[in-house]
Amino acid sequence: MSADRPKLFLSDNSASVHPAIWEALRRADEADTPYDGDAVSTGLDERMGEVFGCEVAVLWVATGTAANCLALATMVQPHGGVVCHEEAHIEMDEGGAPGFYLHGAKLLTVPGEGAKLAVADVAARLDAIRDDVHQVQPHALSVTQASEYGRVYRPEELMALGELARTRGLGFHVDGARFANAVAHLDCEPIDAVGAAQALSFGFVKNGGMTAEAIVFFDTGLADVARYRRKRAGHLQSKGRFLAAQIMAMLEDDIWLANAHHANAAAQEIAGACGNRLLHPVEANEIFVTTTQEERDAIRRQGFDFYDWGRDAARFVTAWNTRDEDARGLAKAIANL
Amino acid sequence: MSADRPKLFLSDNSASVHPAIWEALRRADEADTPYDGDAVSTGLDERMGEVFGCEVAVLWVATGTAANCLALATMVQPHGGVVCHEEAHIEMDEGGAPGFYLHGAKLLTVPGEGAKLAVADVAARLDAIRDDVHQVQPHALSVTQASEYGRVYRPEELMALGELARTRGLGFHVDGARFANAVAHLDCEPIDAVGAAQALSFGFVKNGGMTAEAIVFFDTGLADVARYRRKRAGHLQSKGRFLAAQIMAMLEDDIWLANAHHANAAAQEIAGACGNRLLHPVEANEIFVTTTQEERDAIRRQGFDFYDWGRDAARFVTAWNTRDEDARGLAKAIANL
Amino acid sequence: MSADRPKLFLSDNSASVHPAIWEALRRADEADTPYDGDAVSTGLDERMGEVFGCEVAVLWVATGTAANCLALATMVQPHGGVVCHEEAHIEMDEGGAPGFYLHGAKLLTVPGEGAKLAVADVAARLDAIRDDVHQVQPHALSVTQASEYGRVYRPEELMALGELARTRGLGFHVDGARFANAVAHLDCEPIDAVGAAQALSFGFVKNGGMTAEAIVFFDTGLADVARYRRKRAGHLQSKGRFLAAQIMAMLEDDIWLANAHHANAAAQEIAGACGNRLLHPVEANEIFVTTTQEERDAIRRQGFDFYDWGRDAARFVTAWNTRDEDARGLAKAIANL
Amino acid sequence: MSADRPKLFLSDNSASVHPAIWEALRRADEADTPYDGDAVSTGLDERMGEVFGCEVAVLWVATGTAANCLALATMVQPHGGVVCHEEAHIEMDEGGAPGFYLHGAKLLTVPGEGAKLAVADVAARLDAIRDDVHQVQPHALSVTQASEYGRVYRPEELMALGELARTRGLGFHVDGARFANAVAHLDCEPIDAVGAAQALSFGFVKNGGMTAEAIVFFDTGLADVARYRRKRAGHLQSKGRFLAAQIMAMLEDDIWLANAHHANAAAQEIAGACGNRLLHPVEANEIFVTTTQEERDAIRRQGFDFYDWGRDAARFVTAWNTRDEDARGLAKAIANL
Repeated sequence: MSADRPKLFLSDNSASVHPAIWEALRRADEADTPYDGDAVSTGLDERMGEVFGCEVAVLWVATGTAANCLALATMVQPHGGVVCHEEAHIEMDEGGAPGFYLHGAKLLTVPGEGAKLAVADVAARLDAIRDDVHQVQPHALSVTQASEYGRVYRPEELMALGELARTRGLGFHVDGARFANAVAHLDCEPIDAVGAAQALSFGFVKNGGMTAEAIVFFDTGLADVARYRRKRAGHLQSKGRFLAAQIMAMLEDDIWLANAHHANAAAQEIAGACGNRLLHPVEANEIFVTTTQEERDAIRRQGFDFYDWGRDAARFVTAWNTRDEDARGLAKAIANL
Repeated sequence: MSADRPKLFLSDNSASVHPAIWEALRRADEADTPYDGDAVSTGLDERMGEVFGCEVAVLWVATGTAANCLALATMVQPHGGVVCHEEAHIEMDEGGAPGFYLHGAKLLTVPGEGAKLAVADVAARLDAIRDDVHQVQPHALSVTQASEYGRVYRPEELMALGELARTRGLGFHVDGARFANAVAHLDCEPIDAVGAAQALSFGFVKNGGMTAEAIVFFDTGLADVARYRRKRAGHLQSKGRFLAAQIMAMLEDDIWLANAHHANAAAQEIAGACGNRLLHPVEANEIFVTTTQEERDAIRRQGFDFYDWGRDAARFVTAWNTRDEDARGLAKAIANL
Repeated sequence: MSADRPKLFLSDNSASVHPAIWEALRRADEADTPYDGDAVSTGLDERMGEVFGCEVAVLWVATGTAANCLALATMVQPHGGVVCHEEAHIEMDEGGAPGFYLHGAKLLTVPGEGAKLAVADVAARLDAIRDDVHQVQPHALSVTQASEYGRVYRPEELMALGELARTRGLGFHVDGARFANAVAHLDCEPIDAVGAAQALSFGFVKNGGMTAEAIVFFDTGLADVARYRRKRAGHLQSKGRFLAAQIMAMLEDDIWLANAHHANAAAQEIAGACGNRLLHPVEANEIFVTTTQEERDAIRRQGFDFYDWGRDAARFVTAWNTRDEDARGLAKAIANL
Repeated sequence: MSADRPKLFLSDNSASVHPAIWEALRRADEADTPYDGDAVSTGLDERMGEVFGCEVAVLWVATGTAANCLALATMVQPHGGVVCHEEAHIEMDEGGAPGFYLHGAKLLTVPGEGAKLAVADVAARLDAIRDDVHQVQPHALSVTQASEYGRVYRPEELMALGELARTRGLGFHVDGARFANAVAHLDCEPIDAVGAAQALSFGFVKNGGMTAEAIVFFDTGLADVARYRRKRAGHLQSKGRFLAAQIMAMLEDDIWLANAHHANAAAQEIAGACGNRLLHPVEANEIFVTTTQEERDAIRRQGFDFYDWGRDAARFVTAWNTRDEDARGLAKAIANL
């Protein structure tokens, strides 16, 4: 069977569900409290607090888009704006969800290498906004950890961005759709990978989960607002116990981190074969590789599945379940181009 | 074990997940196409079309609230209104979600026995709205099948409401959180239980599902809009294959209908013991029973779990997995009051 | 000429513009600072502060609808609600503007005689809202002074409502489209006619103005938010000096109050002739009079212009420029029915 | 007196009101129909239709921001986007109003010289948007005539942009805050300066008006929607007769065009003295002039009032009432630098 199984580097969204999740879902089926009143949902704050070493409030939701937007909605008034990278997921790939959830607040975009924001660039963008009613004033800063190009913010970078946000009176949000991969790369305490953020969208679906993501509020007061907004957005699932169970399962025994380490290692295996074809240094689980159409065809003929990235590149994404032989095989295929 | 298991009449949201769902989720785990591109997601239109005997377009979402609001958003402009019952779920229990999804459109409420709308009452409400810009104009009509009090619209009632909607230029939406129970009660073709609606929120979670509800568009053009709105609302799950699988599993072998028949039968068992304590005729799977606090305490001491309904009544909800002995036991407990 | 001039009791919106307004507009034409930077705009805070005997912040806008909604938007989050009378202008006659400005927040309506809210009724409505995410939570209370039926809240009624708002954590807004008429009726200090409101929509257009209304913020911090919202709503006029001038002119020499006294006196003249035909006690400048269609036809044949109020009543509105002979004439016409 | 009068080149918003407007306002004061029911309001369609030589529907509003946003709201669904220049007024200077009025729809910006859009650049932007739900799809195209840098679209440019919009299924809106200046520059039929737009924001305030702008709908069906949206936005003024009067007065005897010719001629006078200091060719009534701070100080010492444009330039704006001697004086002052 394995021979026929696709060699998947399309997206970590394509990966299957981790066994621990299945077990947790089965256990959840024995609970019966609707919405978020079950013991696992209410226990997430404590367990997640242990991960981060501080008090937090956790809300489960079904998608990263909902997580990002609900988190930002607690920091941004409708007449304000969110400073983010010009290639941030919230700007490019969420179908206008921030406009919906933030009631028309504006994304104020900033360029930066590898889809990462530099303090100086953010400061320059903020300085260029006249402090009058004719221009949208910034209310929050959002960064993606790891970035849309698989780059990871170092703790000191996050501290500097957080300090900038604080001094300018902005909320600070981290889109962590691949937060686990960032922590695995940094090999640091989770709290150091999130800086002084008030809220983190902590992704689990790409990392072996099925249908649950977490919003982690470090400013727990914001969670009180987000709870109303979650219901209002149709994201308070009536059998929420099945979402809580997934998150709890990932946190138990640090499966989230082990899965990310695995995916990152597979990415490193592949990156090692790419030489100066790499569009971006590989730090998490995405590899962007300069290739011609012919080259991509050649790779695909060997059974590898992945996305074109524009005309001149390919994007490969590894996952918690990427087989070692597939990673090695892809590395070899690229090396042979 | 059974002896210790709670005798649950709290909510059908408390019910466990049907075995067929578990099997389908396992199969879905072998698929790998992100979002809604998998074979099961794309196959829902055809399968659901067979259920209703006509062309439909189906979108999965996580909650009934999202289903209702995304459906209505295709029919109602932000400056318009939705005519609905004053005790409709969208008015009372969705945390203002319609205001969010419809961008401030107004719910125009109408009274009616058993949370059902009568044609004459709807017409009177419409007639009272001046056709000028100072008043919010109705854009859609929404009914709940079965209603919030477990009452079922008969096919001819739906036809009359649909005709009224059509002649007044209104969209027509059916909130079918318990649509299966309505169909089971009517013992009719599913299409006759939904009338000439343009969209149906077809609930599965209360009926043995885990995390998937369906929006069924009979006006398939509306689905093209709803797809963008779903993404924008953060409801396009990246592993949507797990939602599609649940809906497909329920449709196979008419499990949805079998489950509803079971729940309805259990409700009838209980209702038979209630006499004139019944607040509403029992047609679906909810039983509202006039009781004193002392009487409810007495029932609870026998191991039954349920909600108070105000000060003077109890609400009992049966489910696909209500055990016959529990239903009989509850009937006996009520009869003995 | 006078003989041909219509005897207008249609609406105070039909009244002409007071001479002092014209003079002020001419003076404004000599200023040249765009938006709200002119000396008159910036001087409104001080002048209005003298009227109310406390620090205030004033924003001009073009309409009462904009005033109401911008004021409420500073107090109500999109997921919240506004408690108001079921016949309040914001509920009935603003084309859904609150839904727009408050981003889908809900109006939570309460009945009450004469379109006035009683403390007990408001408290009962608040008590009926479950404190959970499924129900829209109240964020503000809004009352209309004078009410939609021309009834005036007494200072002690406002204090009680304000105290209720305060203890329940609600903002408190007064829609004063006819605030001047209320103050004139009460013959009190203006501040006593507004209670502990955080914001007042202070109407001038109905009282002899042309195109300017004021939002008076007693909680001046709210004005800082409202300024951004005003621009965002397209209500920051580039020649705002012409709006500021109107408000300032009305405040000078208490023209606003003199105009209201005149209108109220005319209303009393008419009310005196109505006997038990009055639907509501006449306290401001509106008179609702039970009449048959034939009776209304008879009055109209004598040259009086007014609106039907449903099938069985007429609404007469007096204004700053209602001629004494017209008021006497109408009184006589009614007495002769 | 004239000697003391400021030599104003700050903004055309600083200009006084044209005498014909004052006369019209006085006449309007004799009318008494509230809202937009007066004879002048209802006569605008016909009169404006004569200006453009086709059937149109006209709505008055108080500001250009409201005009732009209400027009766009008829063409753009909340989940869509508006293609516009990256320095368009709607993007830069309306305080996020499009986000408010369009319920979170996104502005999709395009660069271009002189704040003008080129067909090829717009096409490239459109081509770069993937046709899937993850990206915001364009629903309309908006151009500014004359542009934010005083550049004027030629009729053939507008036709090409309109054709592009049509073939891509986009609405087409023209922000004509200075439309009169564009027509005056082109010396063409007004219809040729607006192309195949469905709606035009026709500015009057900068051109000698007081508080009235017009939305001209060439697709008259859109006006039926806009009327509800105008009320909902608090822009249906109760004494709208005073706004209608201003627009009608400007259209009578082509005062709008004469005023624009005057302002443009003054701009040409000044431009002639600027040589290669001009940042943009002068086509309407704005002159952007490279200058040092010292040079700007020198000009200001001669009594001229204007805005800095960044650090290295000045912006001068002429108006309907710019005195010839002031224009000549400014030209001389610049020539003498």
